Amino acid sequence: MQDFNDNPHRRFNILTGEWILVSPHRTKRPWQGKNEEPAKFSQVSYDENCYLCPGNTRASGDVNPEYTAPFSFTNDFAALLQDVPEEQFDDGLLKAESESGICKVVCFSPNHALTLPIMKVEEIAQVIALWQEEFIGLGKRSDINYVQIFENKGAVMGCSNPHPHGQIWAQRSIPEEIIKKTQQQEHYWKDHKKSLLGAYLEQELELKERILVENEHFVALVPYWAIWPYETMIIPRRKVETIDQLTDEEVRDFADIIKILTIKYDNIFKTSFPYSAGIHQAPTDGLNHEEWHMHMSFYPPLLRSSTVKKFMVGYELFANPQRDITAEQAALTIRSQSNEHYTNSI
Amino acid sequence: MQDFNDNPHRRFNILTGEWILVSPHRTKRPWQGKNEEPAKFSQVSYDENCYLCPGNTRASGDVNPEYTAPFSFTNDFAALLQDVPEEQFDDGLLKAESESGICKVVCFSPNHALTLPIMKVEEIAQVIALWQEEFIGLGKRSDINYVQIFENKGAVMGCSNPHPHGQIWAQRSIPEEIIKKTQQQEHYWKDHKKSLLGAYLEQELELKERILVENEHFVALVPYWAIWPYETMIIPRRKVETIDQLTDEEVRDFADIIKILTIKYDNIFKTSFPYSAGIHQAPTDGLNHEEWHMHMSFYPPLLRSSTVKKFMVGYELFANPQRDITAEQAALTIRSQSNEHYTNSI
Ligand SMILES: O=P(O)(O)O[C@H]1O[C@H](CO)[C@@H](O)[C@H](O)[C@H]1O
Ligand SMILES: O=P(O)(O)O[C@H]1O[C@H](CO)[C@@H](O)[C@H](O)[C@H]1O
Repeated sequence: MQDFNDNPHRRFNILTGEWILVSPHRTKRPWQGKNEEPAKFSQVSYDENCYLCPGNTRASGDVNPEYTAPFSFTNDFAALLQDVPEEQFDDGLLKAESESGICKVVCFSPNHALTLPIMKVEEIAQVIALWQEEFIGLGKRSDINYVQIFENKGAVMGCSNPHPHGQIWAQRSIPEEIIKKTQQQEHYWKDHKKSLLGAYLEQELELKERILVENEHFVALVPYWAIWPYETMIIPRRKVETIDQLTDEEVRDFADIIKILTIKYDNIFKTSFPYSAGIHQAPTDGLNHEEWHMHMSFYPPLLRSSTVKKFMVGYELFANPQRDITAEQAALTIRSQSNEHYTNSI
Repeated sequence: MQDFNDNPHRRFNILTGEWILVSPHRTKRPWQGKNEEPAKFSQVSYDENCYLCPGNTRASGDVNPEYTAPFSFTNDFAALLQDVPEEQFDDGLLKAESESGICKVVCFSPNHALTLPIMKVEEIAQVIALWQEEFIGLGKRSDINYVQIFENKGAVMGCSNPHPHGQIWAQRSIPEEIIKKTQQQEHYWKDHKKSLLGAYLEQELELKERILVENEHFVALVPYWAIWPYETMIIPRRKVETIDQLTDEEVRDFADIIKILTIKYDNIFKTSFPYSAGIHQAPTDGLNHEEWHMHMSFYPPLLRSSTVKKFMVGYELFANPQRDITAEQAALTIRSQSNEHYTNSI
């Protein structure tokens, strides 16, 4: 195994069925490229120009209520729309079909200055409870077969507003990533009558080297096949197919592990750590999905510092995902961070 | 068909077998997010601090020759290395294998201030000739089964040096993107005994609405299933499997169409248009690849202006590629640009 970790090698992602390229020695190269603005925490708890703050008017003209707990609404500029006529076009080479869906915005807190790592565990648990509620409402619709819950955090990840918020895009068709993960989990389930991710988790808990944080109901780790420099995954110990199946106790532990993981993230480069995070779970297509083991993944772009990110460009787009440090190096760095947020000691 | 173009819909990529989501109305949303530095042309033809300029010393200590034509060398900080011992590790859930390969840097010109659109057609033809030479040298090695030629242009695409250059990563295994494209082309070849891309090209030439530029041997178009806002593809009319099969006449036409397409790109937002470009071609694994039809694709990130790009983040990473304008809108914009570079009239 040692050779793999020192030399270029490929690792297999059991959830997608795809290989990734690992080039451990690559960070030795000097960086003369682009520097990002380091992300800063907002200093005001209310911003009159923020379209997500309570009481403010949005671009659509709608006025936000004076909300005091997590609050969701339909995206004013949704990528997916309801009531799109169902149509197909197929001449073999040009092939298209209409798509319908619903896009929501989920404000995590009325407080403009907060982020998940500096919110209280109870407040994060309220966010998860709203995710559950939205999932149930959207998922039960006959025209919604998959519900994608995600957060883009930080300007470098395309986030256009620092107010703590995430999004939900729910749609008729099943997205590509979910098709791959369903297939892989289905194969394993058929062969072994147990959860692929559960079996993987067992093995990681024995090996320990990629484990970051544990509590009674959840484990956070760097997956063996991570692509993004500090990519991580939060996995429920119990095979839960969809977020609504989490018990109140599990929700609290989920909130707790999100808080600790994102604190560690912020501590690595002493910045408000940018990422895209998302929850992968079973489709809501009415079929049996006992193969599914839900999980939440974080894809953070920073590589070397608060200003130098990993670019997923030429080779990565045209050929194959590629990373510059090993999953084990990343795990060591994340794990060794304090569970106290760095701003507490400033 | 009109409905597809106005409403959210999905289109199928015949080359990868994957769907993409199109949300045509989405650019109506106001943008309050990140602004990039607009890319500028370098004003000096020689920069003493550039590690790619002729005669300069690189980080490795090697000194560049006083080259006067396109010049290639082995990357000093290569992601792929030769002579990596062949090893495999597989316990079912953790699965890895060693990887070996060669990474090269290809300087397009000794002149630090040039870019492909402002180089002469003959100069671009020399770059293509060097790509051919490198492809032949690398591809004939028994430890190289795929040769990826690409360019990252612009700081926003992770390019760390404005000196006009591209890269070649050649490796033992076949990258994921190439596996998909090989499979799709193979299926079509078996069923129809003709090139998938050739059949597609014929159809596009009849429809005309996504065609951008044509010459005797090449066509540039926006593929029906484009993901990036101004994504394009250059396709040889003849089914050529690999770049070395291009005749001198074809090389010249290839150079010509690259020049015109990249001039049009620069003209859209009056900037040195960033992109990742890459050539997809048959593996060099010694097998028969008559199904393959080589092509060059451009993935440019800019969406709204020289400073506002499309972010491929949350939904795109976790669920499905998504675009905000249709391929036809993009084609119209690109096609209507002048074939004269905007700086000529300044
Ligand atoms: O080799 P360069 O130009 O320094 O690096 C650039 O291209 C590589 C290949 O696409 C990427 O892996 C890097 O993230 C990017 O910064
Ligand atoms: O909806 P937002 O936050 O304005 O937009 C952001 O997230 C979307 C979903 O990942 C992306 O399509 C956009 O490119 C990105 O800027």
